[in-house]
Amino acid sequence: MKKNHRPEIPRKTIYRLSTYLRCLARLKENKIQTVSSETLAKVAGVKPTQLRKDLAYFGTFGTRGLGYDVVELTSRIADELGTSRLQPVILVGVGNLGLALLSYRGFEKEGFEIVAAFDLEPDRPRDQKSGLPVRAMGDLPAFVQEHHVRMAILTVPAEAAQEVANTLVACGVMGILNFSSLVLHVPEEIMVNNVNLAIELENLSYFIQE
Amino acid sequence: MKKNHRPEIPRKTIYRLSTYLRCLARLKENKIQTVSSETLAKVAGVKPTQLRKDLAYFGTFGTRGLGYDVVELTSRIADELGTSRLQPVILVGVGNLGLALLSYRGFEKEGFEIVAAFDLEPDRPRDQKSGLPVRAMGDLPAFVQEHHVRMAILTVPAEAAQEVANTLVACGVMGILNFSSLVLHVPEEIMVNNVNLAIELENLSYFIQE
Repeated sequence: MKKNHRPEIPRKTIYRLSTYLRCLARLKENKIQTVSSETLAKVAGVKPTQLRKDLAYFGTFGTRGLGYDVVELTSRIADELGTSRLQPVILVGVGNLGLALLSYRGFEKEGFEIVAAFDLEPDRPRDQKSGLPVRAMGDLPAFVQEHHVRMAILTVPAEAAQEVANTLVACGVMGILNFSSLVLHVPEEIMVNNVNLAIELENLSYFIQE
Repeated sequence: MKKNHRPEIPRKTIYRLSTYLRCLARLKENKIQTVSSETLAKVAGVKPTQLRKDLAYFGTFGTRGLGYDVVELTSRIADELGTSRLQPVILVGVGNLGLALLSYRGFEKEGFEIVAAFDLEPDRPRDQKSGLPVRAMGDLPAFVQEHHVRMAILTVPAEAAQEVANTLVACGVMGILNFSSLVLHVPEEIMVNNVNLAIELENLSYFIQE
């Protein structure tokens, strides 16, 4: 499921870049201007060799003996991750979880804006307001094209997930954050990240048993 | 971070058990009573050898030539995961994301009940109703003990996450689903699963760049 033009970077390295970015943000809040790889690694919970190896994929960072410039490294990582500018994201499936995510205003400060919400039944009664108007699935292809949307949050029931994923892929969506419990089958150039809150709880549940 | 009495089972095996459970649920809905390891593996998106290896950790399943009994395998896996009965979970940090999760009613059908919500500022104004009363942090230890709570969902800001995690651990919570971007430092017998929606989006964002 890796993109052809960036085949050599491990997924886990990309996840760790996100962690480094958040650690750097906290250093910046604390008015710290430069940081050693040892300190940044410690804050991020990784070994210094891991941090240096992760950053080496993207070129040369830092000055020997001085460490990393916090602002510069932040901006380089954000550029790599493509979050330097606000990214448009659509949400498909406005059930309880979809509504919950629409009501969560925390994505924008991280660089993502949910620009539209779609549902098979846009007009069915819902427990709470959705913040955004709920559009019909038929409007999705034109919207995605017009707004150059490349990412979607999928919060439809498992039984609808594959069909909706097919539609998204056909419209040009390249990345899907899948909250359904279904394993999606997509072409290999499409990225799917799975988030299943119940499965995370179940996994904890296994390990906490007495 | 593995529990001592179950050291030998890989985390990924436990995650896959959750996937198998959901695949079995769909087979059951479709009135299918027995399933071969080949079919179940295909539905779950793994190799048949992987499925058989995962299940072998927990004893003998299935009848050679007949496959698995759907109901029996479901119940054995649910027992292993500890989700045969409803598990009490508390949520700490009733900000936007906490509110969103409290408004999501999907956990109960998966075996988890959010029984109480706590916040450092229980009485601060909130955008929407929380469904559950928001309790003060000072009430947490007594509540956890009284209700035998062993799992917590942590939705506090990063800067408060470690301190709240320490409190949870001190009260006897064994498993934490951490939504903050902070890497939590906890004793090794405590399980932490991290869910960071922004990081999942960032990760997609990296791979979809043109």
